[in-house]
Amino acid sequence: MGRSKQIAVNAFSMASPTQSWAGLWAHPRSNGLGYTDIEFWTDLARLCERGLIDAVFLADVLGANDVYGGTTDAVLRSGTMMPNNDPMVLISAMAAVSRNLCFGITGNTTYEQPYLLARRFSTLDHLTKGRVAWNVVTGVLASTARAVGTTQQVAHDARYDMADEYMELMYKLWESSWEDGAAVRDKTSRTFADPDKVHMVHHHGEHYRCDAMHLSEPSPQRTPMIYAAGASGRGRVFAGRHAECTFMSTSDIGFAKKTVQAYRDEAVRAGRRPDSVKVFNAATVIVASSSAEARDIQRDIAAYSDEEGNLAMFSQWLGIDLSKYAPDDPITYVESNAIQSIMEAMTKYNPGRPIKVRDLGQFGKIGGREAFFVGSADEVCDEMVKWTEEADLDGFNLVRTVEPGGLGAFVDLVVPELQNRGVYKTAYAPGTMRQKFFPGSDGRLPPDHIGSTFRHRVVEPA
Amino acid sequence: MGRSKQIAVNAFSMASPTQSWAGLWAHPRSNGLGYTDIEFWTDLARLCERGLIDAVFLADVLGANDVYGGTTDAVLRSGTMMPNNDPMVLISAMAAVSRNLCFGITGNTTYEQPYLLARRFSTLDHLTKGRVAWNVVTGVLASTARAVGTTQQVAHDARYDMADEYMELMYKLWESSWEDGAAVRDKTSRTFADPDKVHMVHHHGEHYRCDAMHLSEPSPQRTPMIYAAGASGRGRVFAGRHAECTFMSTSDIGFAKKTVQAYRDEAVRAGRRPDSVKVFNAATVIVASSSAEARDIQRDIAAYSDEEGNLAMFSQWLGIDLSKYAPDDPITYVESNAIQSIMEAMTKYNPGRPIKVRDLGQFGKIGGREAFFVGSADEVCDEMVKWTEEADLDGFNLVRTVEPGGLGAFVDLVVPELQNRGVYKTAYAPGTMRQKFFPGSDGRLPPDHIGSTFRHRVVEPA
Repeated sequence: MGRSKQIAVNAFSMASPTQSWAGLWAHPRSNGLGYTDIEFWTDLARLCERGLIDAVFLADVLGANDVYGGTTDAVLRSGTMMPNNDPMVLISAMAAVSRNLCFGITGNTTYEQPYLLARRFSTLDHLTKGRVAWNVVTGVLASTARAVGTTQQVAHDARYDMADEYMELMYKLWESSWEDGAAVRDKTSRTFADPDKVHMVHHHGEHYRCDAMHLSEPSPQRTPMIYAAGASGRGRVFAGRHAECTFMSTSDIGFAKKTVQAYRDEAVRAGRRPDSVKVFNAATVIVASSSAEARDIQRDIAAYSDEEGNLAMFSQWLGIDLSKYAPDDPITYVESNAIQSIMEAMTKYNPGRPIKVRDLGQFGKIGGREAFFVGSADEVCDEMVKWTEEADLDGFNLVRTVEPGGLGAFVDLVVPELQNRGVYKTAYAPGTMRQKFFPGSDGRLPPDHIGSTFRHRVVEPA
Repeated sequence: MGRSKQIAVNAFSMASPTQSWAGLWAHPRSNGLGYTDIEFWTDLARLCERGLIDAVFLADVLGANDVYGGTTDAVLRSGTMMPNNDPMVLISAMAAVSRNLCFGITGNTTYEQPYLLARRFSTLDHLTKGRVAWNVVTGVLASTARAVGTTQQVAHDARYDMADEYMELMYKLWESSWEDGAAVRDKTSRTFADPDKVHMVHHHGEHYRCDAMHLSEPSPQRTPMIYAAGASGRGRVFAGRHAECTFMSTSDIGFAKKTVQAYRDEAVRAGRRPDSVKVFNAATVIVASSSAEARDIQRDIAAYSDEEGNLAMFSQWLGIDLSKYAPDDPITYVESNAIQSIMEAMTKYNPGRPIKVRDLGQFGKIGGREAFFVGSADEVCDEMVKWTEEADLDGFNLVRTVEPGGLGAFVDLVVPELQNRGVYKTAYAPGTMRQKFFPGSDGRLPPDHIGSTFRHRVVEPA
């Protein structure tokens, strides 16, 4: 088989009845209603680990989508990312029933207090023995700003400026507060820590101020692995600087290739190696023992796709209220700084004919804004290999469909075939998440990552 | 045996090498260094459930104690409540290996965002099927204020005023946003929620502002059970209004009796029944097959008590730097609004002779500021029954000593003897935490609790 490029796979999830594909919780075989139960999560972890899935990646949205019709009615009725529980507190249950599975956890820089969030991630990194990543988001919804009592949402680019400073503070807490060897832990001398090696962080910045030592002793990774995915120019700069994994959602392989290149270019611009960022694309996989059977499953699932829920999601992504349009109205290109890639990808999905409002609602019936692989294991593998090779992708975020059957079929049918082709691991790599994702890593941030420049330094007051 | 009053027991813990009794992590049989591991917590949960312990109660301090000598050196060296991991994210691992054990989790109103904290507790209440309580604290340390970038700590009474408003907002999110029946969850009609029954909370208060619907659908308890323990007058008023469990730390049975009565009086003043608040006292239990053996264990453990660590803890509690005094200096009564009970209890511990600085450092050798029961199972039970009867206590928070042996001996020796005497359950009661703690409860806040007045109401903008 040779040394083919290995394909990495995250199972994309969210503590909500359904996620990207509205309405599927209502399918008779869906376990979506169980998202409030602990077994939903421990079963997911066990299934993932059986399939050598690299990580469970938990999305999060701090607010309700109220763009469609100016209300939250559509998302509430269809259970589309609302209600939506806290991803942070799910992790230790999944960690308790797994040994190698990693966890990507979304955390918001605009609304979480950095001193507290740093401790929360350190605790999770301790409990999982270094199997966590932080997916850094800066907040999208205007409704979140109103929920936390600020009348005005911070403008897009300013949010990323704040996030850059936020990251600097987090790196200081994680990398510089406790020196290596500060946690002595010696019963004989009865010394827990060496006070001379534990330092106060003094951060007096434009947006944040902190004078404290980090509450947690160093965890296996110190800084958790960093995910970030900004589709905008400013977002990509941020990802190029901080992200060790990034991701997109496109149905167009050419767009994917261009985007992968853009992320690698931004990494290089930030002084890093182009392969220091793993790039994932979202993919829906519907696999069965034959191509025909897979298409039957697709039709069966698609019948549960909730059109209003899908339109509500697109309304938020596009920033336009699609309830004001007729189903056959064409969607023309919308200038949207944060998510301008979506329409580009959608337009390329059906070349030669305009995307209509109806198409957005039928997301799932026809494939949506992610890669869409329907067929036998052989056919799905062909597509996965083709995408990773042509677009230089590192892997896929598997979109939740009708679970646990959707992921179960991937594990039972696709994984063995990927292994046969030599493009998928046959055992987990040892070590922390960073070591599993980047063979040869010592587990810490690499020297060319901005966060490593904060290592072991006593930062004096400005 | 008759219908004797049942004694409730919480296992007091903290995600730190040691807690109330400094230095014990260094004992050869202590598992204290394992606090960063997930097995430390799942083993604790299994042990507790084997002993029908009511709840694991997790303390938390958001900052480092830097009163003693004006530095954190003593607490770092002795590992005394520093480092200190996040309690919230430990819970789901413990919940995954238990069925009835409940969890009291400390959360700080001064530093946590209410909209986010409300969701975090709802998620935990979902995952545990209603087995969580929130221990409401308002923040003690000046160092926390500096860590989160506010130069001045909010004054004690003002913190409680803010906390009252914070609670109001939390009740609105938990009790009024989603009506009963709002989460339809009907696959046939493909209706997840009824939008007409999900309401925006509009809270425009003096300290907090929130315009949002609660992100989580109603959890089994909606409002988690509420713990609060203010020792000050203002703190007791707060507890009388909100607490369903409260607790103290005293070595003096008369002081305990007076305090229990004070809490019940405050509950009555808030329009509630006196027994609507369960009152716990902290207790160290050292039990063995004989009285003599228990005293040997006490001496063995006490030899690992860290004097400097203990003095640092007392320095913080008392608000005075004990490093400035000689060991034989007497401690005179200190006016400290937040913790004036400590010295009162300490003075009564050794009637007739003044408490010296040395005594505070030898906390553990001589017993400290909590009840201290050392002896055979029979002797310990005698004391526990005496305290609950004379002081009208509902139970005890068991102080962590050398674990898991300390709690293990309690479970193996004391629990069966308490059961023999008819003062301890022989099986967990069914239902949620509130139902287990308050037989006859329907699981929701009772009608005389202030939080219940927010139930099912649409709160209009002020």
